[in-house]
Amino acid sequence: MRETWVVAATSNRFGRSTESARESATRVAREAIEQSGLDPKAIGQTFVANCLGFAEHQAHVGPLINNGLGIPDVPSVTVESACSSSSAALHEAFVHVAGGFVDAALVVGVERVMQMDSLKATSYFADAADYPFETRNGATFPGLYATLAAAYAAKYPTRPEMFGAVAVKNHANAARNPHAHFQKEISMETYLSSPMIASPLRLYDCCPFSDGAAALVIAAKEASPRPRHEPLVVRASARAGAVTALQDRPTLLGLPSTRVAAEKAFRQARLEPRAIDFLEVHDCFTIAEMLALEDLGFFPPGGAKDAALEGVTQRDGKLPVNPSGGLKAKGHPVGATGAGQVVEIFEQMNGLAGTRGVPHAETALAHNVGATGGSCSVHILSRR
Amino acid sequence: MRETWVVAATSNRFGRSTESARESATRVAREAIEQSGLDPKAIGQTFVANCLGFAEHQAHVGPLINNGLGIPDVPSVTVESACSSSSAALHEAFVHVAGGFVDAALVVGVERVMQMDSLKATSYFADAADYPFETRNGATFPGLYATLAAAYAAKYPTRPEMFGAVAVKNHANAARNPHAHFQKEISMETYLSSPMIASPLRLYDCCPFSDGAAALVIAAKEASPRPRHEPLVVRASARAGAVTALQDRPTLLGLPSTRVAAEKAFRQARLEPRAIDFLEVHDCFTIAEMLALEDLGFFPPGGAKDAALEGVTQRDGKLPVNPSGGLKAKGHPVGATGAGQVVEIFEQMNGLAGTRGVPHAETALAHNVGATGGSCSVHILSRR
Repeated sequence: MRETWVVAATSNRFGRSTESARESATRVAREAIEQSGLDPKAIGQTFVANCLGFAEHQAHVGPLINNGLGIPDVPSVTVESACSSSSAALHEAFVHVAGGFVDAALVVGVERVMQMDSLKATSYFADAADYPFETRNGATFPGLYATLAAAYAAKYPTRPEMFGAVAVKNHANAARNPHAHFQKEISMETYLSSPMIASPLRLYDCCPFSDGAAALVIAAKEASPRPRHEPLVVRASARAGAVTALQDRPTLLGLPSTRVAAEKAFRQARLEPRAIDFLEVHDCFTIAEMLALEDLGFFPPGGAKDAALEGVTQRDGKLPVNPSGGLKAKGHPVGATGAGQVVEIFEQMNGLAGTRGVPHAETALAHNVGATGGSCSVHILSRR
Repeated sequence: MRETWVVAATSNRFGRSTESARESATRVAREAIEQSGLDPKAIGQTFVANCLGFAEHQAHVGPLINNGLGIPDVPSVTVESACSSSSAALHEAFVHVAGGFVDAALVVGVERVMQMDSLKATSYFADAADYPFETRNGATFPGLYATLAAAYAAKYPTRPEMFGAVAVKNHANAARNPHAHFQKEISMETYLSSPMIASPLRLYDCCPFSDGAAALVIAAKEASPRPRHEPLVVRASARAGAVTALQDRPTLLGLPSTRVAAEKAFRQARLEPRAIDFLEVHDCFTIAEMLALEDLGFFPPGGAKDAALEGVTQRDGKLPVNPSGGLKAKGHPVGATGAGQVVEIFEQMNGLAGTRGVPHAETALAHNVGATGGSCSVHILSRR
């Protein structure tokens, strides 16, 4: 297996876009290729994540993007793994490069959902759950994650401020992130007075629907001789699945796919959690960040509930989590989310994160979940 | 790169299904794994092709299939490349196995479209074209392939019987195929009197919408020690893209992605077309079979127009093409089509093709196209 690098990473600002998915994807992909210093023709395959293209009547978007990049002959594939689609695309790209099948690959995640009304978007998103057993009976993701939050709160004494502190922290980080959908801080009072969506989750526990596009260039070690920024080494690229329907799981305390993917990733990287300097985790709801930190092995079960409230996971804390603002406040453009996490890590490691910069970061972890954990990807990235 | 085998391949009967996509996919996947002789837990990743799952409100179907197989922890990814989705999934699986990332992988293609009316299905299929430049302006695939057929007929004198002979041949083959959607022969008279759909294409030039599921188990050489049938060696797995919109192409005579993918595949296999004993090609419309045979290098430009009429591509001809009945008559369950082609090759090589058996087949080629050739996959498979 060849050492494999992320040689370029960029995204647009998440939020409402007036561009079609193909346009914004092509734009960020072109920027990423320019950053990489590679001739576009050096790209051996492109991996696209785009879950809701049918809302724009556009499937099979990869060849359109490649054509826009001037490389129509290059094969493209669209990869879907619900909200973990672009981390799954990154995994496929990693396998192609590390296995020696191509020297360089493009990963581009893109979504345009904000032209839909919220009811429609919520309904489409929910198709990633188990339709006949969950969605068909009224479950959507706020309700499903609320079930996880309620189970957690029933087992471990969890005050509303513990959830709130995750939201407050991630909004504070996003306020310093020019890529973020919500570039504004919120106070604990704002959190606590926000409407209840699905008890115990309030409005500010929930990530938004966002439009967005993020692109990565993955290349074999030294296959990209003149990158604009310092490449990162992909130390681990691991994925796992799990039973999708919550009703069929032995426990609601945590996401089993995160545990399996994390174990694989740490084994592959030959690292332990203490080697990780900061994390981008999948906080589609505040409870998801807590569960992620426990499932990934950074806290014991029940131990992550007050991590944000006590400041541990703040930007200047012992273990910064979601310095980008996370899905919660940076935004959640489904197909672009996982690639966007890697963009944040790339910018942090390259000193491009401005006032949201995390000090002394050598190694970071990206954690991206599909649905309520039917799929999970974990990537570990280091400076060279 | 490790030698990689197809160790099991099976499908259901294409046609109208009363099962959901997850049910039929799980069923055929279970059969394929049983055929392979492997413990399901030996599957390292599953690759699902399912393009129109949203019509059943079910995205992210891989984890549901894996759960049905008793392997919920195993990662799954859905791969979309329009009508070439399951050959693209096979390519991803090949890369994972040949690169040593997993020892065995499952490919499962599935579609359930027949519960939709034809107008809706035609419209959804057309999303794989270039929406703002083609579909939005009224183009659907019958019209787009009719444009290719008209361009071909304008360049080379092509009689209606030449198109008709492709349809008659493929229906005759499908009549002997228990997996086929249309198990009935048609006469040239039936062809010639069938209604014009998009000139010069008549009803019997067009493949049907089909439900269907097909599954393959791909494994490293000898990683599956007790398969029920003789494994096939994957000699080549190659893909290419092309400009999607017909209006943007320099020529309408042939599909450029087929040419690029074929060149890659023959180079990878270190073979020339004359080594191929029979082919499964993407005949979504009769013109597509003719173009495929030229683009793949079996006939010079304009040379394939009378191949079927003269009997060359018939089951007992010099170069049997689509002994399964092809998309034209075996059926076209989008996400299952490419995997279904490999099922046919596997059954032919294992003497399981009954009265549609092709004699003396050692090496065969599968050719699967996305849209009007925005994507193309070519696989070359041999007996060991």
